[in-house]
Amino acid sequence: MNFGIALHGGAGTILKKEMTLDKEKEYLFGLEAALSRGEKILSKGGSAIEAVTETVVELENNSLFNAGKGSVFNHLGKHEMDASIMNGKDLNAGAVCCVEQFKNPIILAKLVMEKSEHVMLTGNGAMEFGEKMNCEKVEESYFFDQLRYDQWQSIKDSDHFQLDHSINNPKKFGTVGAVALDQHGNLAAATSTGGMTNKKFGRIGDSSIIGAGNYANNNTCAVSCTGSGEYFIRNVTAYDVSCLMEMGGLDLKEASDKVIHERIKKIGGDGGLIAIDKNGHIEMPFNTEGMYRGCWSSKGIKKIEIY
Amino acid sequence: MNFGIALHGGAGTILKKEMTLDKEKEYLFGLEAALSRGEKILSKGGSAIEAVTETVVELENNSLFNAGKGSVFNHLGKHEMDASIMNGKDLNAGAVCCVEQFKNPIILAKLVMEKSEHVMLTGNGAMEFGEKMNCEKVEESYFFDQLRYDQWQSIKDSDHFQLDHSINNPKKFGTVGAVALDQHGNLAAATSTGGMTNKKFGRIGDSSIIGAGNYANNNTCAVSCTGSGEYFIRNVTAYDVSCLMEMGGLDLKEASDKVIHERIKKIGGDGGLIAIDKNGHIEMPFNTEGMYRGCWSSKGIKKIEIY
Repeated sequence: MNFGIALHGGAGTILKKEMTLDKEKEYLFGLEAALSRGEKILSKGGSAIEAVTETVVELENNSLFNAGKGSVFNHLGKHEMDASIMNGKDLNAGAVCCVEQFKNPIILAKLVMEKSEHVMLTGNGAMEFGEKMNCEKVEESYFFDQLRYDQWQSIKDSDHFQLDHSINNPKKFGTVGAVALDQHGNLAAATSTGGMTNKKFGRIGDSSIIGAGNYANNNTCAVSCTGSGEYFIRNVTAYDVSCLMEMGGLDLKEASDKVIHERIKKIGGDGGLIAIDKNGHIEMPFNTEGMYRGCWSSKGIKKIEIY
Repeated sequence: MNFGIALHGGAGTILKKEMTLDKEKEYLFGLEAALSRGEKILSKGGSAIEAVTETVVELENNSLFNAGKGSVFNHLGKHEMDASIMNGKDLNAGAVCCVEQFKNPIILAKLVMEKSEHVMLTGNGAMEFGEKMNCEKVEESYFFDQLRYDQWQSIKDSDHFQLDHSINNPKKFGTVGAVALDQHGNLAAATSTGGMTNKKFGRIGDSSIIGAGNYANNNTCAVSCTGSGEYFIRNVTAYDVSCLMEMGGLDLKEASDKVIHERIKKIGGDGGLIAIDKNGHIEMPFNTEGMYRGCWSSKGIKKIEIY
């Protein structure tokens, strides 16, 4: 029985010529740390749900990635985060959107899945639920980052927003995610984001929408997306990969390539996804210059890549 | 070229023996009025988007249905509404959730689709956007209904919530929706809801989620769902019908029956959906005792039914 895990830290205009060697090392180190955390859980016989949760927690705790600690500033100078998780075994799912001050939104999404009768909770209601569940909260200052603050300042009085930003990446889709297959044959997917810089109007992207940015089904695959969220919602992208396998008879590579290089491109969307099927096969296609990504499988495969 | 429209006003435990003749007449009259409004638009060559919007507006303005004016009370004694709309021509879509005091949430969702760069807006942000767009607001009292108030009072201090309520319907899924095909071959779908009585935690159901409760694609069909929302999200129900047609080779009847009588039932979900395909064929399956529904097509078909 194969098992394995894949993760991403966002996709977009990531060019090697604009990356310093030190910065590159930091990213690779961050991805490696998160991957190892998931790999260890799976190797010990732990569940796919546990592996994707802990992997995403590691990425959320790393300020390099736009999720959790590294979340960008919204229009009000706050950090508004979305996350979702799905269990391929029973199609159970949980999601939160527009939550503030929770250290790990993915844990809050998991609590929604496991401890509520609902799938998706938003805003104050979601936060009230999180407090009731004693989900860990932190001060607003925990999320402060000088670089992200400066970039927000530069556009905060405009109507502009950015999908993510760092010095070299004017167009980087800031999302993190993980997908896994465990030794028991169960698939799971988890996705988390800090949204868009200067984001207004309580915008919800694909990351917290089951079917759009995140999906898992033991009969087919587990998928986590990163990209221009609005297009990923309109194409119901994560579920699209699963349907192309289940109903279209495609394999994971054919399905995920078709979704990223044909179907999402056709309406103008860009980004990428990571996916693992029930046999432990992993795909990580993207139609942008780069995607922070990595994977490990019991077949002896390990990759950490950016471009 | 055929064209037509279908609508629903919710599904659930609707039993003829518990319905008075007067009440039944009111429901049939309300459905008929909404259907006529859409039919007129289509007959004059108007767009499917216009037809589904105006049909849903008519249902939102009728206090019998749980959407707009007839919205139930949430845990805080307020009326928190969700709506979504999708254009099958270009896969453009708009959705709002947890909005208060907007007379017609479907119009707000349409504004999100047409006037914003986003697909889905929630809570205060969505309302700020609506005010900026001069979308019509009304006093909280506009939504007051003694029956709905009394039922909320009876459970408001508990942790219980109800999907909808009226004297005879302890289990009625309160949603309204419309799907249409216009003379130009364009499909559209619109869905709106007032949520669940005593709803807490900013719960988002399937009605405002593209792919789950609402979907339209000129290549396949337009779908609007009503039912136990959490199950409809987990099964990505509206898009499921489209995928079974596009990738599975089923026709509209086979696809919508499979989704309602097999796929959603398998995980414990109940409810129904209305759907129209690119040839003007209409299906309205449900797995509950009844569904308020109606349809009209240029082929000379007109139906208004409850059980």
